[in-house]
Amino acid sequence: MALAQEQQTSLLDERKDTASTWFKTLRDQICTAFETLEDELSGGNKADMEAARFERTPWNRADTDQPNESGSVLKGGGEMSIMRGRVFEKVGVNISTVYGTFSEEFADKIPGAKDSGGVFWASGISLVAHMQSPLVPAVHMNTRMIATSKNWFGGGADLTPMFPDEEDTKAFHGAFKACCDRHNPSYYKEHKDWCDRYFFLPHRDEPRGVGGIFYDYLDTGDWDADFAYTQDVGQTFRDIYPEIVRRSMNEEWTEEQREHQLIRRGRYVEYNLLYDRGTQFGLKTGGNTEAILMSLPPEVKWP
Amino acid sequence: MALAQEQQTSLLDERKDTASTWFKTLRDQICTAFETLEDELSGGNKADMEAARFERTPWNRADTDQPNESGSVLKGGGEMSIMRGRVFEKVGVNISTVYGTFSEEFADKIPGAKDSGGVFWASGISLVAHMQSPLVPAVHMNTRMIATSKNWFGGGADLTPMFPDEEDTKAFHGAFKACCDRHNPSYYKEHKDWCDRYFFLPHRDEPRGVGGIFYDYLDTGDWDADFAYTQDVGQTFRDIYPEIVRRSMNEEWTEEQREHQLIRRGRYVEYNLLYDRGTQFGLKTGGNTEAILMSLPPEVKWP
Repeated sequence: MALAQEQQTSLLDERKDTASTWFKTLRDQICTAFETLEDELSGGNKADMEAARFERTPWNRADTDQPNESGSVLKGGGEMSIMRGRVFEKVGVNISTVYGTFSEEFADKIPGAKDSGGVFWASGISLVAHMQSPLVPAVHMNTRMIATSKNWFGGGADLTPMFPDEEDTKAFHGAFKACCDRHNPSYYKEHKDWCDRYFFLPHRDEPRGVGGIFYDYLDTGDWDADFAYTQDVGQTFRDIYPEIVRRSMNEEWTEEQREHQLIRRGRYVEYNLLYDRGTQFGLKTGGNTEAILMSLPPEVKWP
Repeated sequence: MALAQEQQTSLLDERKDTASTWFKTLRDQICTAFETLEDELSGGNKADMEAARFERTPWNRADTDQPNESGSVLKGGGEMSIMRGRVFEKVGVNISTVYGTFSEEFADKIPGAKDSGGVFWASGISLVAHMQSPLVPAVHMNTRMIATSKNWFGGGADLTPMFPDEEDTKAFHGAFKACCDRHNPSYYKEHKDWCDRYFFLPHRDEPRGVGGIFYDYLDTGDWDADFAYTQDVGQTFRDIYPEIVRRSMNEEWTEEQREHQLIRRGRYVEYNLLYDRGTQFGLKTGGNTEAILMSLPPEVKWP
């Protein structure tokens, strides 16, 4: 019995390693793909700027069992990658692996955290891109593995065009439908609907963008299958978003289009600060504020 | 007994009228004072713009007992006053008088709302000013009367300089200390400390600005005295803020100072969307989104 438990623990540890190593690999692949777009730019209003590169900043929490101001114990760390460029006005790609003990108040809200005595582990990749061109959609992608007394995957990606374009929307949804269908015929409908419900601003009665997919608490009992799906979501994003960017990044835009973009970005801020669970989770467990708020747009207007 | 109850009700109705009429009067006085500042501008970077005037937009909720999406019944209305000018880049002065029934979830959080079966009435004035000049502090002021099975006043004012200036801070606090002292010798310390605790961004470990006063649930048993204090808070604001604006509105500012202002405004957005109870209260009871979010700055950067 003790041996079985030990094997379980070591299997879980191995899986945690596998997942967090993957998030790092995916980060590297995405950063390379985005830097390639910076190099490729040949038109639009910013082609005379230099192609940018990501800057990486690692961070670590103090290795202490003292609860922080939020009442949680949070250890581990991560790496922020940020690029301010001529295609990507501001894009943040963060990876992190954190662990510790949730405050009691917080543990009540997380599956399996009561039974783990609040003990948790979480690893993931999180990305938000705000583009120079108002003709290129903003985008968000995130995948993660979380472990308490249970463990599961969550994630998704959603597209936020300033001027919705049917081709872009079709390409994005088409890619994620194909991805979902490779794993489970019911995933696309379920995870698309979840995305539509989740990325919605009730106070504006508006969706955040044109959707995508969103899923959480994915634990079918087959860890390898759930991980394979989560990997595929990341790879699908890595391949389809650059295609969408290429489609319009070289077009000129007008001052009016830029103004519209700055105002639409306000909705992104409202969503992230009022509703986004990742932001709330991060800020309320004493996470890294700079990394969490890297999602906020570089310039915004509420005229 | 029935007569006594009727007299109680009619006295409360009279008080509601008195309070909401005052908020309107104060709104008129403040708008006039702010328009005078627009006229007086003679220097700085925007003196060649035209002096602006407030635009007023009344709004009304549907007169229905159907709960809105938030589960609350909300009737009544208000008036937004907004000015986009050469001194005031964007200032909103809102008054509203709303009533109805809170959703059960919300009623649990409001004093006396359980005993009233969720029935409430609320009237107030709320103001946020974002200035053209980074040398002139932004400001917030709000006072309100709320009635459930209890009734009370709340409000306050706080100053958010981009470049804190000792003279400005002293003038602001000095005026509110004198105001408080006219009513109760313990108010200034209590309401200043409340303000410092309340207008604080835990995720940044930063105060929002240089403080001021904040109070809520004020019900000493002497309605006239509580109302007189609330009126004085409004009048004190009306008199001291224009003085502070005059002190630096005619000075030139640099591009660097403007950049700093746009970044500091980001903190204002973070506070309002993450923590401000008025914003949360408004959005979660299905209030008027345009009026509530008028507090957001016209232009912001998170570089």
